Amino acid sequence: MADRVETRRERANAEVEFGRIVAFSDGVFSIAITLLVLGLTVPSHGQDFGDALLDERHSLFAYALSFAVLGRFWVAHHGFFGGLASFDGRLIGLNLLYLAWIALVPFTSQLLGDYGSEPLAIIVYAASLGGVMMTFGGKIVYAYRRGLLRAEYREIARNKVAPGTFAAGAIFLLSMPIALISPTAAELSWLLLFTGDRLGELISRPLMDPR
Amino acid sequence: MADRVETRRERANAEVEFGRIVAFSDGVFSIAITLLVLGLTVPSHGQDFGDALLDERHSLFAYALSFAVLGRFWVAHHGFFGGLASFDGRLIGLNLLYLAWIALVPFTSQLLGDYGSEPLAIIVYAASLGGVMMTFGGKIVYAYRRGLLRAEYREIARNKVAPGTFAAGAIFLLSMPIALISPTAAELSWLLLFTGDRLGELISRPLMDPR
Amino acid sequence: MADRVETRRERANAEVEFGRIVAFSDGVFSIAITLLVLGLTVPSHGQDFGDALLDERHSLFAYALSFAVLGRFWVAHHGFFGGLASFDGRLIGLNLLYLAWIALVPFTSQLLGDYGSEPLAIIVYAASLGGVMMTFGGKIVYAYRRGLLRAEYREIARNKVAPGTFAAGAIFLLSMPIALISPTAAELSWLLLFTGDRLGELISRPLMDPR
Amino acid sequence: MADRVETRRERANAEVEFGRIVAFSDGVFSIAITLLVLGLTVPSHGQDFGDALLDERHSLFAYALSFAVLGRFWVAHHGFFGGLASFDGRLIGLNLLYLAWIALVPFTSQLLGDYGSEPLAIIVYAASLGGVMMTFGGKIVYAYRRGLLRAEYREIARNKVAPGTFAAGAIFLLSMPIALISPTAAELSWLLLFTGDRLGELISRPLMDPR
Repeated sequence: MADRVETRRERANAEVEFGRIVAFSDGVFSIAITLLVLGLTVPSHGQDFGDALLDERHSLFAYALSFAVLGRFWVAHHGFFGGLASFDGRLIGLNLLYLAWIALVPFTSQLLGDYGSEPLAIIVYAASLGGVMMTFGGKIVYAYRRGLLRAEYREIARNKVAPGTFAAGAIFLLSMPIALISPTAAELSWLLLFTGDRLGELISRPLMDPR
Repeated sequence: MADRVETRRERANAEVEFGRIVAFSDGVFSIAITLLVLGLTVPSHGQDFGDALLDERHSLFAYALSFAVLGRFWVAHHGFFGGLASFDGRLIGLNLLYLAWIALVPFTSQLLGDYGSEPLAIIVYAASLGGVMMTFGGKIVYAYRRGLLRAEYREIARNKVAPGTFAAGAIFLLSMPIALISPTAAELSWLLLFTGDRLGELISRPLMDPR
Repeated sequence: MADRVETRRERANAEVEFGRIVAFSDGVFSIAITLLVLGLTVPSHGQDFGDALLDERHSLFAYALSFAVLGRFWVAHHGFFGGLASFDGRLIGLNLLYLAWIALVPFTSQLLGDYGSEPLAIIVYAASLGGVMMTFGGKIVYAYRRGLLRAEYREIARNKVAPGTFAAGAIFLLSMPIALISPTAAELSWLLLFTGDRLGELISRPLMDPR
Repeated sequence: MADRVETRRERANAEVEFGRIVAFSDGVFSIAITLLVLGLTVPSHGQDFGDALLDERHSLFAYALSFAVLGRFWVAHHGFFGGLASFDGRLIGLNLLYLAWIALVPFTSQLLGDYGSEPLAIIVYAASLGGVMMTFGGKIVYAYRRGLLRAEYREIARNKVAPGTFAAGAIFLLSMPIALISPTAAELSWLLLFTGDRLGELISRPLMDPR
């Protein structure tokens, strides 16, 4: 297969090709977000119907949380592609790696919904969202340092998108050891997602502007 | 992540971005409508094949009803996006909330097909379609009051789309208590969907033009 | 919801809206064709692995047949939309009905694969493909008689597409009673698909140019 | 249905139609790659949760490998369509055949993940990826010999894409008999994928420039 990893292409000169990458990514996002529903289990006929449905409240919580996270990341992803001025083969590769993490969420979300009190289920779920966020952060850092971003998005990426992404990723990764002590505490720690970007700046600054 | 909740963008200046939101929504719709088929169960090998297939008639009814509702709402959704002149971050957020209800329908439709005589299954199904309709109504009210609609769609939204949506939503929500008394009566009440928009106007008018 | 069933729209004036209908239909097609794979069952751990895989040869046959039929109909559907000069709400409705039959194929294909020797499985499969073809034929007849087709596609539709579609539909519908006598004979009768359009012309002519 | 197998169409004159074929193919790719996640099994409630998750490491390996292969082939497929100057009905047919192999991968990948130590599972997986590659190679050879490629892609196709594709296909096909002796050796032989294109040139040269 032809390798064009090295060649940088201006978006303006390759709009059709660029559009296909975007459409493929959007396809994976929309399928993964719609497959989340497969984590909800229709009761089997032996069970008490009311009890079985009540048990699905954990799965419904997992559905809502994962839908919100994937939806939010689709918006961010969408902003990122809107902010690209050019792209290269390595960015396409990074994007595929990122999509591999996105497509994994329906599985880890179902694990969380079915086994929410198991520390291991929480750890796996947090790891998968951490993977989503760290690979997204990786795309931003790569595009920023290689100069692939439009001028007007460059500052937004540096001051808002990257810190927010790394902060969210760090929260999920840090919740993994917490889950070993208390699954509930780990889930509560995810509320820190709403605290803003202070933590993320500590991570993203040295990566984006090294030395 | 960059928040552009506040910024309003003219559609004419952001056609590519607007197109991606539309394509993403269409993707979720087409996937959800195609996943409805997973509610039909292939008989397992121990069962009598004819009897097992006959039992699927409820699931086939649920498939047809849900396909018709999602199809109708896709047409309405499609008209709504065609009628937008501009959009903002909050509308994208509302749209994601709406899609979360759409993507839930394959699950509630399967519940209805497998447990059509259980009041609880009917209540959950009616709640999910009520959620679809109320969040769609919410998008229309928001876009109307914030002035995001094209002039020619504004009157259609006010006089036809919003009343029809709220009427349909009210029918599904009102069928929920009815299901406690009689599941059949609840399902029959859905036939009111074909009675037109009188009920819906009572709801949508005060929301759209308050005071 | 706004009803635009009556209003005819020129494609040239509504290219974006037309494109979305096409994209939505293509989405349903590509999802249904990819979901066919769910008809193949991974052996469970108690079974003999080789035997279980060998049993999947029927499912693989059903997969190949359904993929070929859906693929062929996607090409025809694609030609049909390419041949439209204008469209109206009723055509969109017919198209949704058609898509409801398309989206059913992964279920009936799995039935055929798992129960190929049951007459009932063959009848259900033949009925579902008959439904696909008859609703497709219905779209062509409607568009032809309402004058929605481009001049250059009009003759092709009349002389080739409609006869071919009705011939294929008739073959599947006629195979249903045959399956009651011999499932194998019913499956063999599908080979008539390759005999051309003589039968179909008998059906399509009086429908398209009545009296 | 109208047959246009013989007619060659210039891409420039049929951009919309060409775009739909591309979009349909991309849809099948994005759905198949996202369905790979269904190969990961959520433990059932009787099992030890930690052990059951640990067993999923084989499925996770199959997920990663299949995602990488489908991702890589999507990139190649994407380059191929970018390199087309015209197309005909036979190429669309070949492309559907190719997509039938792509859509099969979620099934064979799940087989590999669940039964990685069974020679037969490895053989089936290798056969399915071999099918992907050989049908992709077939598309390239056909387009090259019929002169459907753009001048600038023609040399790339001949010297890089075709040899790489046939080399990869040959590696998977050759690993099938090896799996009968040692499943592990067969899996290790796939590492040859990274050795470059020498083997593939031996296969693709005589096919592309016969005599």
